[in-house]
Amino acid sequence: MIIDCHGHYTTAPAALQVFRESQLAALKGPATATGLADPRISDDEIRDSLEKAQLKLQRERGTDVTIFSPRASAMGHHLGNEATSTRWTRLCNDLIYRVCGLYPHNFVGVCQLPQSPGVAPANSVAELERCVLELGFIGCNLNPDPSGGHWNSPPLTDRHWYPLYEKMVELDVPAMVHVSASCNPNFHATGAHYLNADTTAFMQFLTSDLFKDFPTLRFIIPHGGGAVPFHWGRFRGLAQDMKRPPLEQLLLGNVYFDTCVYHLPGIELLCKVVPLENILFGSEMVGAVRGIDPRTGQFYDDTKRYIDALPLSGQDRDRLFSGNALRVYPRLRARLAAAGSA
Amino acid sequence: MIIDCHGHYTTAPAALQVFRESQLAALKGPATATGLADPRISDDEIRDSLEKAQLKLQRERGTDVTIFSPRASAMGHHLGNEATSTRWTRLCNDLIYRVCGLYPHNFVGVCQLPQSPGVAPANSVAELERCVLELGFIGCNLNPDPSGGHWNSPPLTDRHWYPLYEKMVELDVPAMVHVSASCNPNFHATGAHYLNADTTAFMQFLTSDLFKDFPTLRFIIPHGGGAVPFHWGRFRGLAQDMKRPPLEQLLLGNVYFDTCVYHLPGIELLCKVVPLENILFGSEMVGAVRGIDPRTGQFYDDTKRYIDALPLSGQDRDRLFSGNALRVYPRLRARLAAAGSA
Repeated sequence: MIIDCHGHYTTAPAALQVFRESQLAALKGPATATGLADPRISDDEIRDSLEKAQLKLQRERGTDVTIFSPRASAMGHHLGNEATSTRWTRLCNDLIYRVCGLYPHNFVGVCQLPQSPGVAPANSVAELERCVLELGFIGCNLNPDPSGGHWNSPPLTDRHWYPLYEKMVELDVPAMVHVSASCNPNFHATGAHYLNADTTAFMQFLTSDLFKDFPTLRFIIPHGGGAVPFHWGRFRGLAQDMKRPPLEQLLLGNVYFDTCVYHLPGIELLCKVVPLENILFGSEMVGAVRGIDPRTGQFYDDTKRYIDALPLSGQDRDRLFSGNALRVYPRLRARLAAAGSA
Repeated sequence: MIIDCHGHYTTAPAALQVFRESQLAALKGPATATGLADPRISDDEIRDSLEKAQLKLQRERGTDVTIFSPRASAMGHHLGNEATSTRWTRLCNDLIYRVCGLYPHNFVGVCQLPQSPGVAPANSVAELERCVLELGFIGCNLNPDPSGGHWNSPPLTDRHWYPLYEKMVELDVPAMVHVSASCNPNFHATGAHYLNADTTAFMQFLTSDLFKDFPTLRFIIPHGGGAVPFHWGRFRGLAQDMKRPPLEQLLLGNVYFDTCVYHLPGIELLCKVVPLENILFGSEMVGAVRGIDPRTGQFYDDTKRYIDALPLSGQDRDRLFSGNALRVYPRLRARLAAAGSA
């Protein structure tokens, strides 16, 4: 079984975006968004949005199931206020729930959280609980910078975030560390902000004792960990200079990387330096890069091809493609069993 | 000849730091720093600070000359105001000048700039000119985020920076894109802020037409380019999706990477994906990581060893160790000739 741990519903029917624009427009005028009707989206529209995109690509690439969450760049936690974010988040998560209901073999849900600048992460606990316990989701996306590029929240290792971590531990669900769009003109979203957030989070974990407080808390750092594997020696050396324990001991029981790295040399490096049990197959499709690499004639984001090109043992392949995901997302196995996939 | 394009005077005599602390303390009290005397540092103190550190390592590692600039993390552009930064910058640059005078075979100068949040880069032109024309420096370090982690200046591709670029072009000197310390608790300086700035700058260049306006402007992105080479496929794909020209055409005539990547797999990747004419040997020593890697028994930052381990032709080695630096820093050749080194 091949589990893609990183997929977003980037192809949702247009009514969702129309709602969002009305919601944001209402913030600027005298109207309020509370009177705004939920978007009407039929099952056929959902099917259509997936059949020609994610499902088509799953079939073509030979992957089985995608751990699926709302479009990350559209989370837009920096827009509006807590009420804006709460309503938008529920709608997006409910849509993922419908996707998973229509295609239980192909998708398992992960939620976005109703974060908002200056709002305590504790306020995201209820939506996490709803998504896991009522909608059958197996994890969440956690935005370390709800400001959208101003980075004015406390680091992920601050007690500010602890109420959310307590619930994650209780529910036994991991978080993917994932920022959203950038409203800072310095940071291109998918080309800088995403990767910077990955690197930033890793270094926050490296310099803290967070995992002493939460020994079973787990994070997936997407996009191959940002700059981290390329600078693995730097991070090992920084930890050593600071008299921290080796990375294996310090955080590799809690921190995982996906394979959203869009060329073979990058994937080779990732799998050479990061222990294989810390790598989860992911493609981010349909996502940041949609084109075909003229050098290979294949989609840049068809990351399975890069992994297939590695000289891995069958056991290592299995860990990377499914075993690690089943371990990091303990609720995944039950979802697959319920769908008759496992 | 082996030219290390990235060294900082991280071992300057203590009097420099004592001055800085007094200067910053004066900002908080009724006293002003204008009455503060310059630090007194003897030639012997300078010699001593280098003989047991950078010079010792040059000899041990077999490198010849270091392109040398003030300590990057101490530039602290976010501290105080423009006057604070101007005085501190002149002192730091003057000290580099003395280093280069004492050891003309071993060091060639690169300056820091008197940047300050909200102050126009045009105000850095005079110090750049002084350093190049009077002190014989061959380049500058340009901080894309003088706020120290708040990222509230315009992107490097904004016309805000153009007056400085005009002077760089006129003087034919490149800039290394290099942030300083971080006052944002989210960003560890050497483990996150530095690498994020590298990635951020590259993506700014990728999305702009800066090099149409300045065809001969040149930047070195340090620390191996942050996350860029690891995500080379992502950047190639993003450029392609945005209908930008291929990277070679778009920016590789203007943007270079150093080799400050502290493990062999990272250097292997860098030299595999980035054209060799865009890579300049650098070590950042004595800098971010000072320890010995227990896996190799060698210093993490002894980057020459990693390059020596690559199967490069003699011509490629020469380009990487000296030819590219001589091309990117056109004033370097005259400095070496004046010292009798070339």
